[in-house]
Amino acid sequence: MSSLPDDARAFLQKPNPAVIATLGSDGPVSVATWYLLEEDGRVLVNMDDGRKRLEHLRRDPRVSLTALDEADWYTHLSIQGRVVEMRPDEGLADIDRLSRHYGGRPYPNRERPRTSAWIEVDRWHGWGRQGRP
Amino acid sequence: MSSLPDDARAFLQKPNPAVIATLGSDGPVSVATWYLLEEDGRVLVNMDDGRKRLEHLRRDPRVSLTALDEADWYTHLSIQGRVVEMRPDEGLADIDRLSRHYGGRPYPNRERPRTSAWIEVDRWHGWGRQGRP
Repeated sequence: MSSLPDDARAFLQKPNPAVIATLGSDGPVSVATWYLLEEDGRVLVNMDDGRKRLEHLRRDPRVSLTALDEADWYTHLSIQGRVVEMRPDEGLADIDRLSRHYGGRPYPNRERPRTSAWIEVDRWHGWGRQGRP
Repeated sequence: MSSLPDDARAFLQKPNPAVIATLGSDGPVSVATWYLLEEDGRVLVNMDDGRKRLEHLRRDPRVSLTALDEADWYTHLSIQGRVVEMRPDEGLADIDRLSRHYGGRPYPNRERPRTSAWIEVDRWHGWGRQGRP
């Protein structure tokens, strides 16, 4: 997605603490998450197949995600968008990418099946420095 | 609210980075927020009167809030609930309580009117240590 300016993109490329919000059957549901900004501008998230969040996303693909600067969370950036693609994480390739991005190593739990979801960004809002030097 | 166990309560009492999710007209909307766990178990948040979030909450009081441990955000706790009370923050007393909790000093901007909202906790989920020593 090309409408993210360079400083927003640079901020989102960091392994920031983040929270994703989906629509549950009884209102919004938020939870901490890893995410990865893909080259094409979509945002990857990945869930254990047992997560209720998967049901939420299948019923209503609209999500919001807020990323916080780890050093100073006054700097934060939120996106709103829709999950436009979901598929099984074959070989756990996607969670490994996320795990390397955040922790520098492959994801340790190889037993549980997982699902990847890609968010198309519709809107974004930033506060603070957003990765400016 | 009495159903929060002691460790969850102890975790929420810290000045944790947090994200609140409300229901906008086009799906969930998340943003970083200060919050304060009150003695009665309700959770205080406070907004500039210009925030869209106020409209969202007046239309649909259901919210979700995720608090992250500042030292290690693998530890995080989310609540779902409803805003059961909203009122103008007269004299900015509530934002001052929040500002002292997070930064040790009163809120610097005395010009803009603000609104306080109290969330009754319906459900909570925690991951990680949740404030255990």
